[in-house]
Amino acid sequence: MKRDYATELDFLKSALTLENPLMPTENFLAWMDEKKKAVKVDIEQIRFSEMDHWGFAADSNLRHSSGKFFSIEGIEIDTSWGNVNQWSQPIINQPEIGFLGIITKKINGILHFLMQAKIEPGNINFVQLSPTLQATKSNYTKVHKGRAPLYLEYFRGEKSGQTRVLLDQLQSEQGARFLKKRNRNIIIEVAGDIEVYDNFCWLTLGQIKEALRYDNIINMDTRTVISGIPIGSYPTEVIRLYETLLSTEKNYPTSLLTSFLDEERSLHRIEEIISWITRQKSEYELEVKSIPLKEVQRWVRDDMAIYHEDQKYFSVIPVRATISNREVTSWTQPLVKSAQEGIIAFIIKKIKGVYHFLVQAKLEAGNFDIVELAPTVQCLTGNYRESNGPPFIHNVLNAPPEQVRYDTLQSEEGGRFYREQNRNIIVEVNEDFPLEVPSNYMWITLNQLNTFIMFNNYLNIQARSLLSSISFT
Amino acid sequence: MKRDYATELDFLKSALTLENPLMPTENFLAWMDEKKKAVKVDIEQIRFSEMDHWGFAADSNLRHSSGKFFSIEGIEIDTSWGNVNQWSQPIINQPEIGFLGIITKKINGILHFLMQAKIEPGNINFVQLSPTLQATKSNYTKVHKGRAPLYLEYFRGEKSGQTRVLLDQLQSEQGARFLKKRNRNIIIEVAGDIEVYDNFCWLTLGQIKEALRYDNIINMDTRTVISGIPIGSYPTEVIRLYETLLSTEKNYPTSLLTSFLDEERSLHRIEEIISWITRQKSEYELEVKSIPLKEVQRWVRDDMAIYHEDQKYFSVIPVRATISNREVTSWTQPLVKSAQEGIIAFIIKKIKGVYHFLVQAKLEAGNFDIVELAPTVQCLTGNYRESNGPPFIHNVLNAPPEQVRYDTLQSEEGGRFYREQNRNIIVEVNEDFPLEVPSNYMWITLNQLNTFIMFNNYLNIQARSLLSSISFT
Repeated sequence: MKRDYATELDFLKSALTLENPLMPTENFLAWMDEKKKAVKVDIEQIRFSEMDHWGFAADSNLRHSSGKFFSIEGIEIDTSWGNVNQWSQPIINQPEIGFLGIITKKINGILHFLMQAKIEPGNINFVQLSPTLQATKSNYTKVHKGRAPLYLEYFRGEKSGQTRVLLDQLQSEQGARFLKKRNRNIIIEVAGDIEVYDNFCWLTLGQIKEALRYDNIINMDTRTVISGIPIGSYPTEVIRLYETLLSTEKNYPTSLLTSFLDEERSLHRIEEIISWITRQKSEYELEVKSIPLKEVQRWVRDDMAIYHEDQKYFSVIPVRATISNREVTSWTQPLVKSAQEGIIAFIIKKIKGVYHFLVQAKLEAGNFDIVELAPTVQCLTGNYRESNGPPFIHNVLNAPPEQVRYDTLQSEEGGRFYREQNRNIIVEVNEDFPLEVPSNYMWITLNQLNTFIMFNNYLNIQARSLLSSISFT
Repeated sequence: MKRDYATELDFLKSALTLENPLMPTENFLAWMDEKKKAVKVDIEQIRFSEMDHWGFAADSNLRHSSGKFFSIEGIEIDTSWGNVNQWSQPIINQPEIGFLGIITKKINGILHFLMQAKIEPGNINFVQLSPTLQATKSNYTKVHKGRAPLYLEYFRGEKSGQTRVLLDQLQSEQGARFLKKRNRNIIIEVAGDIEVYDNFCWLTLGQIKEALRYDNIINMDTRTVISGIPIGSYPTEVIRLYETLLSTEKNYPTSLLTSFLDEERSLHRIEEIISWITRQKSEYELEVKSIPLKEVQRWVRDDMAIYHEDQKYFSVIPVRATISNREVTSWTQPLVKSAQEGIIAFIIKKIKGVYHFLVQAKLEAGNFDIVELAPTVQCLTGNYRESNGPPFIHNVLNAPPEQVRYDTLQSEEGGRFYREQNRNIIVEVNEDFPLEVPSNYMWITLNQLNTFIMFNNYLNIQARSLLSSISFT
């Protein structure tokens, strides 16, 4: 498969660059703090009956009066996967494909990313670092009558002479919360001058990955976009070339990179992994039927919230957001509030000298195509406090500290989720850990995962979020 | 991307082999004729009220009493693609994923394919060459109480010690007729002895491709399975190796092969093609709502058929099939009957010395993921007799004979379609043909098409059918 190694090398150099005279990392962290202090954010939980433009329609679903944005509907699930084979639940239905776009530009030969300190009502910290553009179709077709999002023209082809597309993929959102929702994840490079508006700044990819070592700074949308960048997935001859180029130009650190290069040392061929996925999709059925919200079993709706009768999973709450420097200063909207914190974790293991990720084929109700590739562990806290918990949870939670390669709290998208954060963990197990795994798990290299990310609907958002945290510095 | 070049070489050798002492091609053609003469097939058009186990349910949809097999339902389509943006139509709903499986075995070092002379009620000629196994889930879970299909055990893992999976992909069926239907296309290799039942024979891939030069011998299921074999999609270094290996062993003809090798000479990088597909899927919306069959607008149902009021598109007819040597000797079922013959055609052009295929991003109501990659031209005859016809139709129909590389009639699946055949054409245009094409078309090499075939839901069944006909001998 012919690939654009020149672009990949540009991405790699940016990932290996931590120095940025325009915005050194310590300044960036101070700048984020400043942005946070500069805005007044008030999120008030209200009643459904107090919402503007939102209400329960004749079919009982929760909708905006314009018919746009998103709605909260019911679905009924019938599946042959797992232990629970039938249930109904509320789900977010937002059929439009939105933009998650990052503008990049070479500054002193290094690709810099134009990032935005963005306020979202559901954000922990209120302000998190988002892509240059984060826009639903309703957003950029101006349904809410605000001004058009900044930089939109760069992504809609209006500046096509000055821009080049580096990455352009459809990627899924949370299958347990969204019905088949996908976004267009896109990275472009601009050639000429470009205005940097207030709340925007240039960062290298290395700096973004450095900020991912802290809790809740980099938002979910940024994480999904950068997860598509195929760093570390080079054939041997390319990395040898890179090493030469990189060491000639500058003393880039490349030692960490080599542990991710599969150089044809992967445990399974890509065809075997495709066969494994094909088998999962053929064996398991997932039938999803839309139903009116009021027909969802075991869920209660009162004027304050839509919630499960056991207070499990999540609830939908109406809020009024009042924000000083956003396009629309005050508005009401529903937010999804998780009943508890979750955990997502990859177990990785060096096999033949190369890191392999223990990947799970996971079915979720809103998945576009039955199963997606998920982290080794993906569950809510409540689940793993129960007697057994899901497979491998104890390997993750009881890992000796020297095996924990990554452990932070990262937020879900603050435009839909109320202060939801998940623990993101990567654990490197040692030699003793068995290669033999249950039939719905498989060891896959980063190179191979990157190949699947290029094509639609393979890796779920949790897996992508974890992969975005992998740093080579 | 690490690939299994040893397997690809096995496939290539089989594709380049026309001599088969077990079953020379002329014997094979005689054998097919014999099979055809050996059965008595009677397909009688009946009334819906005369059907056994089939009937119109309370919701007006046409169903089998077991709830299995398939049903004829209504859908309502809302799309921003094309000139007609809203319509409703009947569609075949068969949510199960079936098997289309071929067993292969090395005989004298060459991979041979175990093929079946299979009777299907809708087949032109009644008998066509099908994969070893062609089974819906209802089929192999024995809903129709016949015996289990032959060789099923090889595909369900019961012989896993003696078998190796060579190819295993989910591929779509006709998006205009089936609602999101997919089959598991699988090729396995067996090591030990295997019984060859009546109606089965061993053929090389070259022989199957040779038979594809004739009308209506190789059925659609065989065509889709062999289209997944990545012949001709090798990197330069691999083909050099192959040439050496092949010429050492035997004087294989490889001259045709080299015109398909892109050797990094493709007009577009794979990332650009992915970006183009992403743009199509983001820009065009496809909303499909299930409706009762009786609510489909402008379609009529009487006791003889379900048909469009202008007699266009297709109709659904009830038939009684009586066949002498099938599991169930006589049964009734609905078949879909096309209102006219169709045409599917690829325009190919040598660009930088490599064949590029002019591919169309096409939306069809039953598509799994909005658009699929389709041949340059795909339409019903009625369409192109109208004033203008679809783009490029005249380049195909008025091509000078020396540009026509392939031109045969090939059948749709005879288990669902009544004697439906489409003209399959490949035209090689010359230098003058413009590289500039409308925004929903793109020039793609065979290597790149083969890469997309590996992943789900990219090439539609018409594109795959045409690719299966490419011969290198």
